[in-house]
Amino acid sequence: MSETKILLTEKEMPTSWYNIQADMPNLPKPPLHPATKQPVGPDDLKPLFPLELIKQEMSRERWIEIPEEVQEIYKIWRPSPVIRARRLEKVLDTPAKIYYKYEGVSPSGSHKLNTSVAQVYYNKKAGIKRLATETGAGQWGVALSQACNFFGLECTVYMVKVSYQQKPYRRSMMEIFGANVFASPSNQTNSGRKALEINPESLGSLGMAISEACEDAVSRDDTNYSLGSVLNHVTMHQSVLGLEAREQLAKADTYPDVVIACCGGGTNFGGIAFPFAHDKIVNGAKVRLIAVEPSACPTLTRGHFGYDFGDVAGFTPLLWMYTLGKDFMPPGIHSGGLRYHGASPLVSQLVHDGIAEARAYGQTAVFNSATLFARSEGLVPAPESSHAIHCAIEEALAAREAGEARTILFNLSGHGLLDLPSYDTFLAGKLIDFPLPEENLKDALEHLPQV
Amino acid sequence: MSETKILLTEKEMPTSWYNIQADMPNLPKPPLHPATKQPVGPDDLKPLFPLELIKQEMSRERWIEIPEEVQEIYKIWRPSPVIRARRLEKVLDTPAKIYYKYEGVSPSGSHKLNTSVAQVYYNKKAGIKRLATETGAGQWGVALSQACNFFGLECTVYMVKVSYQQKPYRRSMMEIFGANVFASPSNQTNSGRKALEINPESLGSLGMAISEACEDAVSRDDTNYSLGSVLNHVTMHQSVLGLEAREQLAKADTYPDVVIACCGGGTNFGGIAFPFAHDKIVNGAKVRLIAVEPSACPTLTRGHFGYDFGDVAGFTPLLWMYTLGKDFMPPGIHSGGLRYHGASPLVSQLVHDGIAEARAYGQTAVFNSATLFARSEGLVPAPESSHAIHCAIEEALAAREAGEARTILFNLSGHGLLDLPSYDTFLAGKLIDFPLPEENLKDALEHLPQV
Repeated sequence: MSETKILLTEKEMPTSWYNIQADMPNLPKPPLHPATKQPVGPDDLKPLFPLELIKQEMSRERWIEIPEEVQEIYKIWRPSPVIRARRLEKVLDTPAKIYYKYEGVSPSGSHKLNTSVAQVYYNKKAGIKRLATETGAGQWGVALSQACNFFGLECTVYMVKVSYQQKPYRRSMMEIFGANVFASPSNQTNSGRKALEINPESLGSLGMAISEACEDAVSRDDTNYSLGSVLNHVTMHQSVLGLEAREQLAKADTYPDVVIACCGGGTNFGGIAFPFAHDKIVNGAKVRLIAVEPSACPTLTRGHFGYDFGDVAGFTPLLWMYTLGKDFMPPGIHSGGLRYHGASPLVSQLVHDGIAEARAYGQTAVFNSATLFARSEGLVPAPESSHAIHCAIEEALAAREAGEARTILFNLSGHGLLDLPSYDTFLAGKLIDFPLPEENLKDALEHLPQV
Repeated sequence: MSETKILLTEKEMPTSWYNIQADMPNLPKPPLHPATKQPVGPDDLKPLFPLELIKQEMSRERWIEIPEEVQEIYKIWRPSPVIRARRLEKVLDTPAKIYYKYEGVSPSGSHKLNTSVAQVYYNKKAGIKRLATETGAGQWGVALSQACNFFGLECTVYMVKVSYQQKPYRRSMMEIFGANVFASPSNQTNSGRKALEINPESLGSLGMAISEACEDAVSRDDTNYSLGSVLNHVTMHQSVLGLEAREQLAKADTYPDVVIACCGGGTNFGGIAFPFAHDKIVNGAKVRLIAVEPSACPTLTRGHFGYDFGDVAGFTPLLWMYTLGKDFMPPGIHSGGLRYHGASPLVSQLVHDGIAEARAYGQTAVFNSATLFARSEGLVPAPESSHAIHCAIEEALAAREAGEARTILFNLSGHGLLDLPSYDTFLAGKLIDFPLPEENLKDALEHLPQV
């Protein structure tokens, strides 16, 4: 029998990131300055990011070399395995071959460390001493804390309050790695204090927490801002996912019919899908690329395609993307990492151009599939990643229906070991599907910035 | 530079377990029936275990084949990596090469799944429908729950109350895999009810929980008992650890000067150390083997070498081992998996014969080293496993003192992601070293069974 885990050696690890900007038929419109509404230049971004990352953000080079110091740290857990979900296939009685890229082996527990290590490296090289960031479910906060710890930088994390309450273990992890963690909205920033004045009970949102982190970074010379998703350079750092997975499937003599990942900010999806999007755009490969989002925060399936701010306060450049409107406040679902009003401009453009597609699911369906997966494969997945599992199961059942031995690849972007209270709620039958707050969505979409 | 992670392919996985009973200069004296005090035969053990496991318990065959069905499930995570702790070496400024076998990659999060899968397999083959067990920190309970889930058996777990309270996430994990979990002492069994009558506030102990699980198993025909440590067959299943690690170090062109693991019941230590003990006994290899225990429960370093019961109620056979006395009640340290009054007879005999050695440490020193390790290597270790880390660090510093590039191998038997509240306590400066309850120890040693 062929191997269950398809491994690469450290010597087979990608040495460059893949930048899809080199190959897209249409690039997203450029980011605009929030005040002037003119395209931003490198100087506009300097208060937030080091020059190397700004260059990557705008680069159209197809390949960008991964610095040796970053590769050395990647080697703690990379290359991550691709695992054949044989027991799940059997339970589903499907002729499909289901493979998953497993990023839960990373010390931070998710794919986020792929970019945090790179970002901290470039910031350190630029002389920065401290980073500020936001985090939803806490996966990103943990990843940035670890990367800062590796390179000796300080780290401050604004953690969306609903997750701060639901996921105390993630706060512990960040503190083990020396980070300062605040529930957002916090009283540390003007944006936070303003939000608390309006609603002291606010559960927060990623957009709000981004405002706080940006404000923190801009107000101190030794501090930069670091974002765990959405942006082009972040998505590019995640391309190691797809580059490795493509190599691994080739070792198993196969190529995916469909590639699936959950989509919050979009870099998880972009990371695994873009190397295959390259094959599709450049070589005409017949591969479907599916981004999966929660139906409580359906950016790609219900959002508007146009310019919007990345944050609530309007500090960030205007990004060309699918958006629910920065004022949209998603319900407190258990996938904090997917509660974002926008999405990566690169992913948005590819969805808009029909190169990728999007689906949205409710959380009870997602937890059903997560539990089925855990009981079949043994691994307890993060609620965010479980959106991809649910879609993979749908695809496997469709393959059964069609009687076709399709190859399905999905990204299991993180383990759920720090999300177990969500499973308690699910197993107790207390998990509910929040209806989409349609009024709030309508309002938010009506208040998109005028460009 | 040589690789950071030393991997084996699935094809290089051991296909037999190593049974050290074939090679020991002195075997432990045989287990005795609790009532007759005569050596137990297979028939005495049949109410608890399937015949295949009883045979393994008593076997002197050097190699016992791993069934294909067990190998198939092992392949979900095995072979596990051996990782070179380069960053830790650098922090310690040591010429030593530190390697760790990392069992945290298992779906259950620890090495325990190596034996639970095997045990459930043999029980299923024998027609058993349900298993009862105890668990300390919960690592074993999770592992047995997962294995039962894989093979479709029911599972009931008696979890030591102090851990049930400290580690709610481990209970969640067991429930995800369908197990029934009771805090022990519980009101489910006579032994539990009796203990609660004497002390309703009892924190429980492994010895107590074992009594409850045995009573449960004996009282139902469809139910067997399953033990996660101590016994010979359990230790043998863990030999995959040392067999793989020896292969992996050979790939890195080295052989350990010292092999280290924490020791509660002893199968973690035996698992990694026995293949090297083979080399020492049979080929005269110069390798030190160190079992590390908590100074709050110092079985090997302060215990009596002789016969004692494995449990508190005296249901189990009398085992020839180091023991603190079955009535010894260890303080509520954060390493629930090491709070056991006895130790594997095989490990005990090897320590007694000078083939292995033992050390004991307090928990503040252990958490200090755990945090240093996490910050160096990125992985958050289980408190139990951190005893091995502390010893490895001591050994690395001794190598620096001696100016010798020694090779140190330790078993990182599990991750600490479900132990984060312990880290919170440590980081808040609230962790204390419990003094050994000397009076209780003296009493317990005075009441050892007369044989």
